[in-house]
Amino acid sequence: MTQQYHPLTEPEAIEFAKTIPGLFRPDAVLTSREIGDGNLNLVFHISDPSSGASIILKQALPYAKVVGESWPLSLDRARIESEALRIEGELCPDLVPQVYRYEPELALTVMEDLSDHIIMRKGLIERRTYPLFAGHIGRFLARTLFFTSDLGMNQQDKKERQKRFINPDLCKITEDLIFDHPYTDADTNSFDAAIRDEAEQLWNDKELHLEVARLRHGFLTNGQALLHGDLHTGSIFVTEQSTKVIDPEFAYYGPMGFDIGAVLANLLLNYAGQEGWNEEGESRNEYRAYLLQTIKDVWTTFERQFRELWDEANVDRISGTKAFQDIYVEQLLRDTFGYAGCKMVRRIVGLAHVADIDTIPDAAAKERAQRLALTIGKSLIKSHRQAASIDELIELAEKSVI
Amino acid sequence: MTQQYHPLTEPEAIEFAKTIPGLFRPDAVLTSREIGDGNLNLVFHISDPSSGASIILKQALPYAKVVGESWPLSLDRARIESEALRIEGELCPDLVPQVYRYEPELALTVMEDLSDHIIMRKGLIERRTYPLFAGHIGRFLARTLFFTSDLGMNQQDKKERQKRFINPDLCKITEDLIFDHPYTDADTNSFDAAIRDEAEQLWNDKELHLEVARLRHGFLTNGQALLHGDLHTGSIFVTEQSTKVIDPEFAYYGPMGFDIGAVLANLLLNYAGQEGWNEEGESRNEYRAYLLQTIKDVWTTFERQFRELWDEANVDRISGTKAFQDIYVEQLLRDTFGYAGCKMVRRIVGLAHVADIDTIPDAAAKERAQRLALTIGKSLIKSHRQAASIDELIELAEKSVI
Repeated sequence: MTQQYHPLTEPEAIEFAKTIPGLFRPDAVLTSREIGDGNLNLVFHISDPSSGASIILKQALPYAKVVGESWPLSLDRARIESEALRIEGELCPDLVPQVYRYEPELALTVMEDLSDHIIMRKGLIERRTYPLFAGHIGRFLARTLFFTSDLGMNQQDKKERQKRFINPDLCKITEDLIFDHPYTDADTNSFDAAIRDEAEQLWNDKELHLEVARLRHGFLTNGQALLHGDLHTGSIFVTEQSTKVIDPEFAYYGPMGFDIGAVLANLLLNYAGQEGWNEEGESRNEYRAYLLQTIKDVWTTFERQFRELWDEANVDRISGTKAFQDIYVEQLLRDTFGYAGCKMVRRIVGLAHVADIDTIPDAAAKERAQRLALTIGKSLIKSHRQAASIDELIELAEKSVI
Repeated sequence: MTQQYHPLTEPEAIEFAKTIPGLFRPDAVLTSREIGDGNLNLVFHISDPSSGASIILKQALPYAKVVGESWPLSLDRARIESEALRIEGELCPDLVPQVYRYEPELALTVMEDLSDHIIMRKGLIERRTYPLFAGHIGRFLARTLFFTSDLGMNQQDKKERQKRFINPDLCKITEDLIFDHPYTDADTNSFDAAIRDEAEQLWNDKELHLEVARLRHGFLTNGQALLHGDLHTGSIFVTEQSTKVIDPEFAYYGPMGFDIGAVLANLLLNYAGQEGWNEEGESRNEYRAYLLQTIKDVWTTFERQFRELWDEANVDRISGTKAFQDIYVEQLLRDTFGYAGCKMVRRIVGLAHVADIDTIPDAAAKERAQRLALTIGKSLIKSHRQAASIDELIELAEKSVI
């Protein structure tokens, strides 16, 4: 079934779903629900109420809608997403949705339904805990980053893979919204009037700009590994037992620390957002301790497994020494601090915010949370080249709470 | 005239040359001379003896012959070479041969004949001086590196360009022969028995290996700019008035310092090779002084013009500061030292040597030259991360002569 590209209707989505063998009974009466946010993609949830079987059809739209504007966006990102999911699925089968079909003409990916999971950001806002998460995501980071890098795969094959993940449209979003606009008075910026002083400080902090320029340059040039490219807690589905990383449409070859930093930044944004719920001081402190422990466990799991992979599976002869491994991992930690900081700052003053903070009802508490996130973010950016231990990030987060 | 790929015969080369409009008179009787070394490419020199008009047809062969072995090599390198020549030609029209035609099916490029020039390596061996060379190559480096980087071109267009210059086959040659084999007892290595002690030291020097691992990692991941990729003095045609950079089949996106270092390394190899001609102490010292002055002028011209381009034509808002420019240029100098060192070492103990040293008739003098080149090369590698001025390289070269 090859078709010219057009956005599918719900009846068409159902017809398409029926062509995937082995998912539904031939006589099933399927229902469809469009559950995407409509900005970038159509997402159809197709199910057979009588059997409970269900799948997701995700179709890329040829434009992005943001702040009322619409700009063209390559449909090639659907190919990139499906290929990234397959690579991640080979390396960590339990940590990504299964892909059943990719239909290039329609920019359509058919994949496992994860409706029994919830978006991790929502779970964190509800102060749920995920005892297996740090181990899962640490393993995801270690394996996907190691085995797509020059350390873990043939260097010529890596170059061919890098070619398939040249991703200009989606990288531009990151380059503009994370590494540029928050540091100047850009139209896309969005922040509460109460923290205008903070925004203006960001626009005028030359020391900060210099560190952001370094990190931006690394993002533009450092093709270390195939990144997910947008690994925030809204791209992670969880239950207490399960973790699933979704939506790798920003995938491209970039600095490993960008993915690791994204995870830590979003945990820290929730940490800052706890400021909003001070009527429950005791449990707030407990939850913050849980978040910091999770951050530490994510890094520690990542580092341990990354080093184990290096010891067991390194394919780069001259990199095989313990001394170079130490240098490499130290640089990853530094990059992680820096990128985590950039990811925090943009969520407070830039175009896209996070619900962890935006949904705080009390204006004063929300302002405190925003200032706290900026304090941590800026400190991470400014100190990133001196980072030597994940404990420094934990201490920084702790001491930033007034 | 589209044809299936096959290596051209001389009569076929002549027929093809006649199809290029405006080069030869319709009734011209053309002659062909195959002047390639037969290892990687066929090179036909086609001329009309009656008018003196002439062109070069360069055709890639589907294999490389090295040390008697033959291994397959992608014909895509002919496309890469012709596209790189066009980009370089747009940026520095006077510094590359003009391309008249590229024929993808035949992996064939038709270009300007530069027979009035000589290969620079040969000129240096004959102790000729090229007063305009440093200015020319400094400008070539500044313009080609700046305008193909994220600093000088749109960052999304740069990614599309990077995709066109993914060049696994040719990069593998560099990765193996420059960044791996000289530092282990590899079959491809080739060195005189007299310096086996030096080779064995290279294989066992852990401090050196660590720095080479850093530089290799930079070569594998740091997609800063479109490099020539093989910018030694055998890839440069010169007269006293003219400089022409040829043979960019190794072109790919890599660290800028790799190209700059290649130029300096080959000047330094000739400097070391002067050891072979000690019957003329006075003029030897003069020529060495000329070489060191040329090295200094190449870097100085590059740096000045690169900074001017940055000030005038930078397209990356947050990189636009003087402070970041200083950091960036300092890192380029460090990379240049490191890559220059790697390029020197491989030419003494690795597969491919240089005539500047290999043709020294006196065995003892040749050995002194080889040891001198290794001393300078190893020092550059080990000290590269501390480099702060091109004068340090000059001093290092001077004090290494015993």
